Amino acid sequence: MSKHRRYRSAEKTLGTSPGTLTYVGEEIEHATKIKRIEFNATDYRIDDSSKLSACRLPGLETPYINWIDVDGIHEPQVVAALGQQYHLHPLLLEDVLNTEQKPKIDIYDGTSPGNGNGVAKSTGPVVFVTLKMLHHNRQRQEIDIEHISLVLGRNYLISFQEERTKDIFEPVIERIKASSGKTRRNGADYLMYALMDVIVDHYFLITERIGDKMDELEEQIVEERATQQTLAVLYKLKRELSFIRRTVYPVRDIINTLLREESDVIQHNTLPYLRDLADHTNQVIETLDSYRELISGLMDVYYSIVSNRMNSVMKTLTIFSAIFMPLTFIVGVYGMNFKHMPELDTTYGYYVVWGTMVLVTVGMIVYFRRRGWM
Amino acid sequence: MSKHRRYRSAEKTLGTSPGTLTYVGEEIEHATKIKRIEFNATDYRIDDSSKLSACRLPGLETPYINWIDVDGIHEPQVVAALGQQYHLHPLLLEDVLNTEQKPKIDIYDGTSPGNGNGVAKSTGPVVFVTLKMLHHNRQRQEIDIEHISLVLGRNYLISFQEERTKDIFEPVIERIKASSGKTRRNGADYLMYALMDVIVDHYFLITERIGDKMDELEEQIVEERATQQTLAVLYKLKRELSFIRRTVYPVRDIINTLLREESDVIQHNTLPYLRDLADHTNQVIETLDSYRELISGLMDVYYSIVSNRMNSVMKTLTIFSAIFMPLTFIVGVYGMNFKHMPELDTTYGYYVVWGTMVLVTVGMIVYFRRRGWM
Amino acid sequence: MSKHRRYRSAEKTLGTSPGTLTYVGEEIEHATKIKRIEFNATDYRIDDSSKLSACRLPGLETPYINWIDVDGIHEPQVVAALGQQYHLHPLLLEDVLNTEQKPKIDIYDGTSPGNGNGVAKSTGPVVFVTLKMLHHNRQRQEIDIEHISLVLGRNYLISFQEERTKDIFEPVIERIKASSGKTRRNGADYLMYALMDVIVDHYFLITERIGDKMDELEEQIVEERATQQTLAVLYKLKRELSFIRRTVYPVRDIINTLLREESDVIQHNTLPYLRDLADHTNQVIETLDSYRELISGLMDVYYSIVSNRMNSVMKTLTIFSAIFMPLTFIVGVYGMNFKHMPELDTTYGYYVVWGTMVLVTVGMIVYFRRRGWM
Amino acid sequence: MSKHRRYRSAEKTLGTSPGTLTYVGEEIEHATKIKRIEFNATDYRIDDSSKLSACRLPGLETPYINWIDVDGIHEPQVVAALGQQYHLHPLLLEDVLNTEQKPKIDIYDGTSPGNGNGVAKSTGPVVFVTLKMLHHNRQRQEIDIEHISLVLGRNYLISFQEERTKDIFEPVIERIKASSGKTRRNGADYLMYALMDVIVDHYFLITERIGDKMDELEEQIVEERATQQTLAVLYKLKRELSFIRRTVYPVRDIINTLLREESDVIQHNTLPYLRDLADHTNQVIETLDSYRELISGLMDVYYSIVSNRMNSVMKTLTIFSAIFMPLTFIVGVYGMNFKHMPELDTTYGYYVVWGTMVLVTVGMIVYFRRRGWM
Amino acid sequence: MSKHRRYRSAEKTLGTSPGTLTYVGEEIEHATKIKRIEFNATDYRIDDSSKLSACRLPGLETPYINWIDVDGIHEPQVVAALGQQYHLHPLLLEDVLNTEQKPKIDIYDGTSPGNGNGVAKSTGPVVFVTLKMLHHNRQRQEIDIEHISLVLGRNYLISFQEERTKDIFEPVIERIKASSGKTRRNGADYLMYALMDVIVDHYFLITERIGDKMDELEEQIVEERATQQTLAVLYKLKRELSFIRRTVYPVRDIINTLLREESDVIQHNTLPYLRDLADHTNQVIETLDSYRELISGLMDVYYSIVSNRMNSVMKTLTIFSAIFMPLTFIVGVYGMNFKHMPELDTTYGYYVVWGTMVLVTVGMIVYFRRRGWM
Repeated sequence: MSKHRRYRSAEKTLGTSPGTLTYVGEEIEHATKIKRIEFNATDYRIDDSSKLSACRLPGLETPYINWIDVDGIHEPQVVAALGQQYHLHPLLLEDVLNTEQKPKIDIYDGTSPGNGNGVAKSTGPVVFVTLKMLHHNRQRQEIDIEHISLVLGRNYLISFQEERTKDIFEPVIERIKASSGKTRRNGADYLMYALMDVIVDHYFLITERIGDKMDELEEQIVEERATQQTLAVLYKLKRELSFIRRTVYPVRDIINTLLREESDVIQHNTLPYLRDLADHTNQVIETLDSYRELISGLMDVYYSIVSNRMNSVMKTLTIFSAIFMPLTFIVGVYGMNFKHMPELDTTYGYYVVWGTMVLVTVGMIVYFRRRGWM
Repeated sequence: MSKHRRYRSAEKTLGTSPGTLTYVGEEIEHATKIKRIEFNATDYRIDDSSKLSACRLPGLETPYINWIDVDGIHEPQVVAALGQQYHLHPLLLEDVLNTEQKPKIDIYDGTSPGNGNGVAKSTGPVVFVTLKMLHHNRQRQEIDIEHISLVLGRNYLISFQEERTKDIFEPVIERIKASSGKTRRNGADYLMYALMDVIVDHYFLITERIGDKMDELEEQIVEERATQQTLAVLYKLKRELSFIRRTVYPVRDIINTLLREESDVIQHNTLPYLRDLADHTNQVIETLDSYRELISGLMDVYYSIVSNRMNSVMKTLTIFSAIFMPLTFIVGVYGMNFKHMPELDTTYGYYVVWGTMVLVTVGMIVYFRRRGWM
Repeated sequence: MSKHRRYRSAEKTLGTSPGTLTYVGEEIEHATKIKRIEFNATDYRIDDSSKLSACRLPGLETPYINWIDVDGIHEPQVVAALGQQYHLHPLLLEDVLNTEQKPKIDIYDGTSPGNGNGVAKSTGPVVFVTLKMLHHNRQRQEIDIEHISLVLGRNYLISFQEERTKDIFEPVIERIKASSGKTRRNGADYLMYALMDVIVDHYFLITERIGDKMDELEEQIVEERATQQTLAVLYKLKRELSFIRRTVYPVRDIINTLLREESDVIQHNTLPYLRDLADHTNQVIETLDSYRELISGLMDVYYSIVSNRMNSVMKTLTIFSAIFMPLTFIVGVYGMNFKHMPELDTTYGYYVVWGTMVLVTVGMIVYFRRRGWM
Repeated sequence: MSKHRRYRSAEKTLGTSPGTLTYVGEEIEHATKIKRIEFNATDYRIDDSSKLSACRLPGLETPYINWIDVDGIHEPQVVAALGQQYHLHPLLLEDVLNTEQKPKIDIYDGTSPGNGNGVAKSTGPVVFVTLKMLHHNRQRQEIDIEHISLVLGRNYLISFQEERTKDIFEPVIERIKASSGKTRRNGADYLMYALMDVIVDHYFLITERIGDKMDELEEQIVEERATQQTLAVLYKLKRELSFIRRTVYPVRDIINTLLREESDVIQHNTLPYLRDLADHTNQVIETLDSYRELISGLMDVYYSIVSNRMNSVMKTLTIFSAIFMPLTFIVGVYGMNFKHMPELDTTYGYYVVWGTMVLVTVGMIVYFRRRGWM
Repeated sequence: MSKHRRYRSAEKTLGTSPGTLTYVGEEIEHATKIKRIEFNATDYRIDDSSKLSACRLPGLETPYINWIDVDGIHEPQVVAALGQQYHLHPLLLEDVLNTEQKPKIDIYDGTSPGNGNGVAKSTGPVVFVTLKMLHHNRQRQEIDIEHISLVLGRNYLISFQEERTKDIFEPVIERIKASSGKTRRNGADYLMYALMDVIVDHYFLITERIGDKMDELEEQIVEERATQQTLAVLYKLKRELSFIRRTVYPVRDIINTLLREESDVIQHNTLPYLRDLADHTNQVIETLDSYRELISGLMDVYYSIVSNRMNSVMKTLTIFSAIFMPLTFIVGVYGMNFKHMPELDTTYGYYVVWGTMVLVTVGMIVYFRRRGWM
C-alpha cells in the first residue's frame, strides 16, 4: 500500500513495445534464488544450486513432478531465460515481473509466438495464475504485499515470488520432504492448489488481525471513549479492507476458472480441493464484507454520539444563560442611579430582591427539568 | 456471535495439510451420543447405544432407511471412524468438524480418495449439507449458534450436531415413533427435508423475536422516548440481523442446488416439499430485509428528532438572550455614574425606563411568535 | 400491516408435520360461502347454495367452464374437503390457508401424493397462484390485506378469498351474467386472468391514493409548512410503500412464469392479455419506485429546511449578542466607582457615550449586512 | 408532469372489461386530423382529407409504402374504426388511447381475436411501439409530454400522436416531398426508424436544456451564491431528470427488441440505423445519469457550504462572547458599592483597569488566531 | 470537459436526415494531414503527401499491410472521399466526425448501402472502433479529449484523430521504421491493438496524475489543514473521475467484443495481446473505482473534522459563558444601590466576594474537566 508503487509505473513503460520485460518493483541487491524440486510418491530430489541450466522443460515421459521455486523477480534476464527454456509467452513473463499486476488467470494453449525466429513450439496448455501474498508487517504496522506467480504445465510447476526474508512456500517443501502424503502422491495441479492454499490461509490471518482491531474500536466507540483519532483509524481500516478485498476478490474468479477448465492440466481428483479453496476464499470475502458493514455502522454510532455531546453542550449553555440572564438583569435594575427609586429606600428591599432571584432560579430549574434538559 | 469464535482459528490450522481433522469449537466434556434409527412404512428400530460399530454403511438391498443421529462433534476420532465406515471424503469430514464453516452444499460423486491406501471405493453419490441452527438464548440474551451437518446417501442419512442440552431433531424422532405418516413412508431425502424444515422453522421463531424488539424500539422512537441507549440497541439489532441474514441466505442456494440436482438421491416426490422449504427461507430473508430497511428508517426518524431537539434548545437560548440583553443594556445605561445625566433627576424617569423595558420585551415576544419560534 | 399478523405464527406451527392444515388468520364466525358458476359462450348457471357436494372435479368432456368461488378460508375442513375432491396437493392447501404466505406461483404436475392410501391420481397439471388484494380501509386509514388463492385446472378454476363484507370478484360474475363477451367465450385461463386483473386494478387505486398523500406532503414541505409530524407521516408512507412493493413485486414473476408456461392449461389466445397484465404490474411497481425516490428527495429538502432554520436562529442570536455585548460593556465602564474617572465629570460625557454606542451599533449592522446575515 | 395525469385514471376504468377503449387524457375540441401518405422511390401521394374511408389495409402487391399519420387520439371511435380496418388487437388500441401508458413494444403475430364474430384474420405480424415525445414548454417552464404510438405492418405504418399545435412528424413528410433520398427508397420499417429518430433527437434537446440549467446552478453553488431557493430548484431538476429517465430508458429496450426481432417486418438494411438509434438513446441515458450524479455532488457541496457558514456564525458569536464577557465582568467588579475597596481610591486605578482590559482583549485575539478562528 | 462541447450539438443536427456528415467539434484552420504507411516483415514505405488519391482500397493480393493515418477530422469532404474509396457506411463516417460520440464498436458486414446509385459493394467485414485519447493539459490544468476512430479491414487500417499539435501514433510509426519486430511481422489487427495500447497507456498516465492529487488532498485532510477550498477540489476531482470512468469503461466492452469476434479480421495470434489490453483497461477502471471510494471516505473524514471543530467552538463558548455569567451576576449584586445592604459596610466584604468568585471559577473548571470539555 506504499504510495509509490500503486500502479505499474506508467511513465517508465510508455511507448515500449508490448511484451518488453521491465521490473517495476523495489530495487533489490540479492541474486535470484532458484530451487528445483523433483518428486513422486516414492522419491524426491531437491536442487537449490540456483543454476538456470538445471531448469529444463521436463519430457512428458519423466516419472517426476518438477517444481521450480524462483525466489526473486528483480532480474529480468533470469526470468527471460527461464521463459525461453519453458517456451512461455512474452506477455506471461511481463506479468510475472510486473509487481503492480492485479491477480488474474490466463490459459495459454501452448503455442508460443517464438521470440524473433517466428517458429512456434507447441508445449501443451499452460495455466498462468498470479496473486498476492499478504503479510502483516509488525514493524511498520502495515500490510506487506508480495507478488506471486504460478505457471502450471502438464508435469511441472514454476512459482515466482518476490525476494523477501523468507520463502513462503517452505511449509510445502517441508511436507514433501516429511512424508509421502497427499502432496507427493498427486500431480502438479495438486501442488499448485497446495501453494494457493498457503496464500489463502494467510488471508485468514490478516482478516483475523483486522477483526481484533475492529473489536477494540467497537469497544472504544460503544463505551463513548472514541476521539477524533478513532475516526481516522476507522478510515484507515476501511481503506485497508477495501484494498484486501480487491486483492482477494479475483482469487475467487481464478479458482472458478480453474474449476471450469478441468482439462489435461487440472485432474478430476483435484477438483474437491479447489472447491474447498473457493469456499475458503468466499469465507474471507464475506468476513471482509461484514467488517465493512460494521465499520459504517460504527461510524453511525460515532456520529450520533458526537451530535449527542453537542446537544449536551448546547443544553448546558442554554441553562446557564437562562438562569443568569434574568438574575443579572434584576441586579442591574437596582444598580441604576435614579434619584427617585422607592424600592432602594425600603429596609427589606435587598432581601426581597434576593427572594425574587431565588424564585426565578428555582422556576427555571423546574422548567428545564420538565423539558428533560437537566 | 461470540467474539472468540468468529472465524476458523486461522493460526491453529496454518500450515497443516488440507483435510486434517481438527475441532475448532468450544471445549466439551461429554462423550458423543450416537442414535441409529432404522425405519420404513411398516416398522422402526431405534438403537441409542452410541456404539460406532452399529453404524455400518447399509447395503443397497436393505429394506430400511438408516438414520445416524450424531450428537456432539468435539471428538475428531469418532467422526473420523464414521467417515471411514461410510467412505466419506476427508474434506467433508473437515467441514463437519469446522464449526466456523459457513452453510454450504457439496455433492461428492462417491469416489472417496482413499485414506492412505489409494484404493478408491465407489459408494454412489453423496450430498453434503451444512447449516446453522439458531436458538434464542434467554439467559445471555444472545443468539446461540449450532453447527449442523447432514450427509445424504442413497438409503441413509447422517446428521451431526454440536453437543447442547437438547437433541434438536427430537420432534422428528417422535413423529417417526408416533405414526407411519409421511416421514415413514418416504425415503432418506424426505428425512433430510424434514430435518432442514425443523431448522428453518426456528429461523421463523428468531425472526419473530426480532420483530417484537423492533416494535418496541419503533414505539420508543416515534413517541420520542428514545435515548442514546436506543441507538446502541438499534446498532446491536442491525448487527444481529446482518448475522442472521448471512446464516439464512446460503440456505436458499442449498435448496436450489438440491432442486436442480434431482437425481438418484433426491426423488421426484420430495421436490414439492423442497420448493416449499425454499419458499419459507425466502420469506425469512424477505422479512429480515424489510427489518433492515425499517431500522434505517427508524434511525432517520431518530436523527431528525435529535436535530429538532437541538433546534428547540437553540431557540430557547436565542429567545432568552434576545429579551434580556437589551434589558440589561438599558439598566446598565442608568447605572452609569456621569455627573450630568438629566434623566436621573426626573421624578418619573425610573418608571419610564420600566415602561420602555416592558415594551421591548413585548416587542421581542411578538417578533418571535411571528417567526414561529415560540 | 397489523403488527400481530406480520409473519405466519411460527410458534403455533412449530414441530407439526409439513402439510398440516392450520388457519393462522383472524377468527371469523360466518360460515364459508361457496358459489359454483358454470358457463360457456352460449349459456351459464350459478349455484350459490354453498354445498360442497356440488363441487366435483368436472370431467374433461364437460362443455362448461367450472368456477368455484370460495368466500372464506377460516374453516380448514371445508378447504380440505374441496382439496380432496379436486385431488390437490396438501402443500397447496396449506398455502391457501396460510394468510401470511407471500404471493407466489406453483405448478403441480397433477400427481397428488394421495392422503394416506398412497394411490396417486393423475388429474392433469394444476397452476396454483396466491396473491394479495389491497383495499384502502377508510375507517382505520390503513391498507387492508386479503389473501387470495387461485387454482387453475384444465377446465376449472377455484378461487379462495378471505371472508370480508364483499365478494371482490362480483364484477366478473356480473360480466358473465350480462353478456356473452370475452369472458364467456374464453377458457378457465382467461377467467383467471380476469380475476387477477381485478386485483391489479385495485393496486392502481391504492397507488393513486398514496400519490395524493404525497402531493399534499410535498406542498407542505416545499412551502416550509412542515413540522416534526410531517416526517413521521413520511416515515409511515415509506413503510407502506415498501410493504405494497413487496406485495406487488412477486406478481410480476407470477405472470412471467405463466407466460413461459404456455401449456395445456394456458392457451395461446390468453397470452396477449397476460402480457398486458404484466405491463400494468410493471407500471404500478415503477410508480411505487418513483414515489420512493421522491420521498427520499423530500426528506433531503426537509432536512435542509431544518438546518437552514437552525442557521437563521443562530444568526439572530449572534447578531443580538454582537450588538449588545459591546454596548453593555461600555455602559459598564462608566458604572465603575473609581474616584478618579475624568470622563464622568465632563458636561457632554454622557452624550459622547451615547454617540459612541450608536456608532458601534451602526457598525455592527453594516458588518452583518455585508456578510449577508441580515 | 402535471399532477392530474400521473397515472391512468384508475377509478374511471375499474371494473370495465379489458380492451374497452377509453381516452383518459385532457379534453380536446378539435376533430382528429388524418393524413395518408403513399410513396416509393419514384413517386409519392399525400391525402390529408382526414377521411377514414381512404385508410384501408393495403394489399401486399401494392407498389407503395402506406403511412397513416393520425393527429389526435381523443376520439375513441376514430381509433376503433382504424383498428377494425387494419385488424388490430383491442389491447393494442387500448394502449394507443391510454396516454398514461409507459413506453413499450408489443409484437402481435397478426391473428386478431375478431371483435365479436369470432373469425380471426391473419394479416402478418404487427409491431406496436409506444413512446413519449418531450417538448420544452417555454411558457409554463415545464416539460410537455405527448403520447406517440407507431403500428408497423409489412408495407404500412400508422402513427398516432396527441393533438397539439404542430404535427411533430412534419420534417419527415418534408423529406419525403423534397427528394427521393433514403426515406423514399426504403421500406415502412425505415420510416418507423425515421419517426423514432425525430423523437430521440428531441430528447437531446431536452437534455441540453437541463445541462444549461445545471451549469447555472453549479456556478451559483460553487461561487457560494446559493440560497434555500437553489436547493428547491435542484430538487425540481432531480425530479425532472428522474421523470425523463423513466421515459427514455424503455426506448433502449424497445430498440433492442426490434434488433433481435429482425423478421419479415424489419429488414436487414435497417439494422445499422436502429443500432445507431440505440446508441443515441444510450448517450441520452448516460448524460442523464451523469447529471444525476452531478446533482448529488452539488448537494454535498451545498450542504458543506451551509455547515461552514454555521461554523463561521458560531465562531463570531464565540469570539464576541469570549472577549466581552471578561471585560464586562471586570467593569462590573469596580461597579460594586463596597465601602472598603482600596483600588477605587487610587489615582491610576481607572487606567490600570483599562490596561488590563486591553491586555485581556489582545490575549483573546491572539488565542483565537492561534486556533485559526480569526 | 469544456461546457460547450458536452453533447453533440443537438440543435444543429435536428431534422437532418441520418447519415448526413457534419463536423461538430471546434473550428480548425489547418488542412487535414494524411499519412499512408505500407509495411510487411521485410519492407516498409511511408507516403506523407496527404494526397487522397494515394489512398485506395488495397486489393486482397497485395503483400503489404496498409495504414492510413488521418490527422484532422474537421473537413467532412475529405472524410467523405476516403469513405467512398473504402466503401464505408455513412453512419460510420458520421461517427468519425461526431466528436461527441461515446466510445463504441460497430461491426459492419461489408455491404455498403451505396450512396445514391443503390449498388451495394461487398468488401469483407469492417470493424469500426471509436475511443477517446486523454491528455493532461498542463496549461489549463484540465484533461484534453481527442476523438479517435479506427477502421479495420482485412489488410488495411484507417485511423482518424483530431488535429492537435502532435500525431499521437508517432511512437508506433517509429517502431515500424526502427525494426522488423512484432508490429511489422503481424497483420492489420495487431496494428489496431498497438494503436489502442498507446491510448490505454495514456489512461494510466492520467490515473497516476489523479492519484498524486489524491495523495495531496488526503494529507491535507487527515492533517486537518483542509479548508472549504479542499472540498471544492474534491468535488472537481470526483467529476473528473466520473468523466474518465465513462470514457474508459466502454473500452472494456469494445475489447471484449473484439475477443468474441475472432474472425477473418481478428487473427488467433492477436488474442493474447487483446486480452492483455482488456486486463490493463480493467486495472485502470479498478483504480478509478478505488479512488472514487477513497474520495467519499475522505469526505466523511472532512465532515467529521468540521463537526468536531464546531463542537470545540461550542464548548469554548459554553465554558466562557458558564464561568463569567455567575461572576458577572455576583458583582452585579454588590453594584445595587439599596440603602440597606449589610455586606457593603463590612471591612472584608470585598475580599469575601473575590474569594467566592475564585471558588465559583475553580468549581466550574473542575466540573468541565470532569465532563471532558477542557
